[in-house]
Amino acid sequence: MSFSQNHISSYKDIKHRCSYRTQEQSSKQMEGVRNQQVILKDYVNGFPKESDMLLKTSSITPFKLPQGSNAVLVKNLHLSCDPYMRGRMSKNQGSYVDSFTPGSPIVGYGVSKVVDSGHSNFKKDDLTWGGTGWEEYSFIPNPDTLFKIQDTDVPLSYYTGILGMPGMTAYIGFHEICAPKKGEYVFVSAASGAVGQLVGQFAKLTGCYVVGSAGTKEKVELLKNKFGFDEAFNYKEEHDLNAALKRYFPQGIDIYFENVGGKMLEAVLLNMRLNGRISVCGMISQYNLEEGEGVKNLFCLINQRIRMQGFIAVDHYHLYSKYVEMVIPLIKEGKICYVEDIAEGLESAPAALVGLFSGKNVGKQVVVVARE
Amino acid sequence: MSFSQNHISSYKDIKHRCSYRTQEQSSKQMEGVRNQQVILKDYVNGFPKESDMLLKTSSITPFKLPQGSNAVLVKNLHLSCDPYMRGRMSKNQGSYVDSFTPGSPIVGYGVSKVVDSGHSNFKKDDLTWGGTGWEEYSFIPNPDTLFKIQDTDVPLSYYTGILGMPGMTAYIGFHEICAPKKGEYVFVSAASGAVGQLVGQFAKLTGCYVVGSAGTKEKVELLKNKFGFDEAFNYKEEHDLNAALKRYFPQGIDIYFENVGGKMLEAVLLNMRLNGRISVCGMISQYNLEEGEGVKNLFCLINQRIRMQGFIAVDHYHLYSKYVEMVIPLIKEGKICYVEDIAEGLESAPAALVGLFSGKNVGKQVVVVARE
Repeated sequence: MSFSQNHISSYKDIKHRCSYRTQEQSSKQMEGVRNQQVILKDYVNGFPKESDMLLKTSSITPFKLPQGSNAVLVKNLHLSCDPYMRGRMSKNQGSYVDSFTPGSPIVGYGVSKVVDSGHSNFKKDDLTWGGTGWEEYSFIPNPDTLFKIQDTDVPLSYYTGILGMPGMTAYIGFHEICAPKKGEYVFVSAASGAVGQLVGQFAKLTGCYVVGSAGTKEKVELLKNKFGFDEAFNYKEEHDLNAALKRYFPQGIDIYFENVGGKMLEAVLLNMRLNGRISVCGMISQYNLEEGEGVKNLFCLINQRIRMQGFIAVDHYHLYSKYVEMVIPLIKEGKICYVEDIAEGLESAPAALVGLFSGKNVGKQVVVVARE
Repeated sequence: MSFSQNHISSYKDIKHRCSYRTQEQSSKQMEGVRNQQVILKDYVNGFPKESDMLLKTSSITPFKLPQGSNAVLVKNLHLSCDPYMRGRMSKNQGSYVDSFTPGSPIVGYGVSKVVDSGHSNFKKDDLTWGGTGWEEYSFIPNPDTLFKIQDTDVPLSYYTGILGMPGMTAYIGFHEICAPKKGEYVFVSAASGAVGQLVGQFAKLTGCYVVGSAGTKEKVELLKNKFGFDEAFNYKEEHDLNAALKRYFPQGIDIYFENVGGKMLEAVLLNMRLNGRISVCGMISQYNLEEGEGVKNLFCLINQRIRMQGFIAVDHYHLYSKYVEMVIPLIKEGKICYVEDIAEGLESAPAALVGLFSGKNVGKQVVVVARE
């Protein structure tokens, strides 16, 4: 784990790979270029393990796009590890995204640099964020899904987090779905994660009272001391989540930003205030279970006239430029911070992804494949 | 059971009481008037039984309001049996309404006639609907909660149903909460009940495809042949509710009007379409359980971007006149029908109320205390 401000901790693997590429440079169009990939071996049941993935070295020959292609060829710089990817590791779970293809590279969000472009919106050396492969280089057949990065005066890795899908998730789920008002009481679970840390800070900027839950003492400290949550607690130390919530919210909860599901949701429902809103972003506690847990206390939806709404950031990407205009100044003025957990090198990607589900990461989990 | 169009099936008890009252009439202000009441003996656990209530004969002396009172004294004509009343029979269940008081009469919605009024909005012989007691006569200390009945060209009992709280519940839950569009697929559980039968008909009038579930063959027939549901099924005959829903909604459900909770909700979640809406009106399957069932499949809220919203009609009573303007012409033109299950006499009230929870009633359960 390292925070964004000091994430340049180990360049060893990167340097090695860079020099290797340099040797290939002169002859790469003829001979092709090495492309290390993270392959999903087979569909996963239960908790994913590092051994569910393997590193494979293939090559791209020729190292350019075919004539007349609309695609782009990119070099991947930063890859994003996100909890929703667990669903893609299972077969046909009726999820909102397709399953990964066993035998092929993992796919996900990433920050990339254009190597060759057949698309009029992109040219060589443009920086992008969007869907890409867990590999050194990727062909993007439909570049319309990519965002061109305009502002490089912030860490590029932020485009996997605060300036990418997780940022939009926090923004849409909190501001658009929950329509918060100053003075309201906000609870965030998985609060130190890629999304939760932002929801808490957005809530404070809106003038709300915000409490977060996380799974280690270190994360709880981070919530209080770095992100400015009013209170925070370690849910693993609470035998009675209902009692814990009553302690932190004697007056009840107006807004719950739901990242975990299961027992936490069950307890939150008992503590919601009249006209409360629950923005359902994720349910990480359920992703590795054979069968999801049943959630009690749904009758509270009626008692308290609660609106509970599931959403996915991608449906709201038309609001991305509005979001970025709001959030980049906040970053530059130091009014919002973003903690990343950086794993160095593509070979560290399987462990980084798997670590999400045991809460190993502190902050947004990023894999640095290359720095330029 | 009898339908509204032929609900004058047994006047015996009513006639008896009426003649008794007539004898008292001349001297009633001095001697007081008999007031038969349905008393809740004690808080109830599990399924309520008739024996949880008792009939008690008290008297109102003097039979008039004190000087300077703002209250009204009403004669109760029709009493409404509603599933939400189950929550009031238990102690302090964190429900949206207070518990009943053991030793005192049950309270609920009813249609009444003003006997004496200290409130400027009401005068003798006005007809009202709103909160009243399960007794022959009630003092209403805060008559601001009563609606004055303007249109008597429809059965008066309708003001406990289609023109009262259940009507508003159907209207708000379907039109305001779910914002239905023509051509959408609508599912209603407890579909022949006081609320469900209206939701189905509103859905048809909106141009939706609507399927209902109920608990007997007779009710299923009613849904299809009287209320015009496109399809209906007996949930008790379905071993696999998910499969049943897939059969009736191969394309999925846009709108679910939730009256039952539990396993039905769990199955519905698996069959919701993108951007589906679930209006949570009640969860009758859960009311008599010591501990509510857990509901699985809530992750579908995210996959399908579902909005699930609890509501209570009373929050929306400012829309009552708008609703009545819409629905009374539909009743008069025969474009909407309303089936009532009439129990005759206050003494039949405990059985009528208890019957709701085993699905004994067909249509809106009303108790006729007096006809004028």
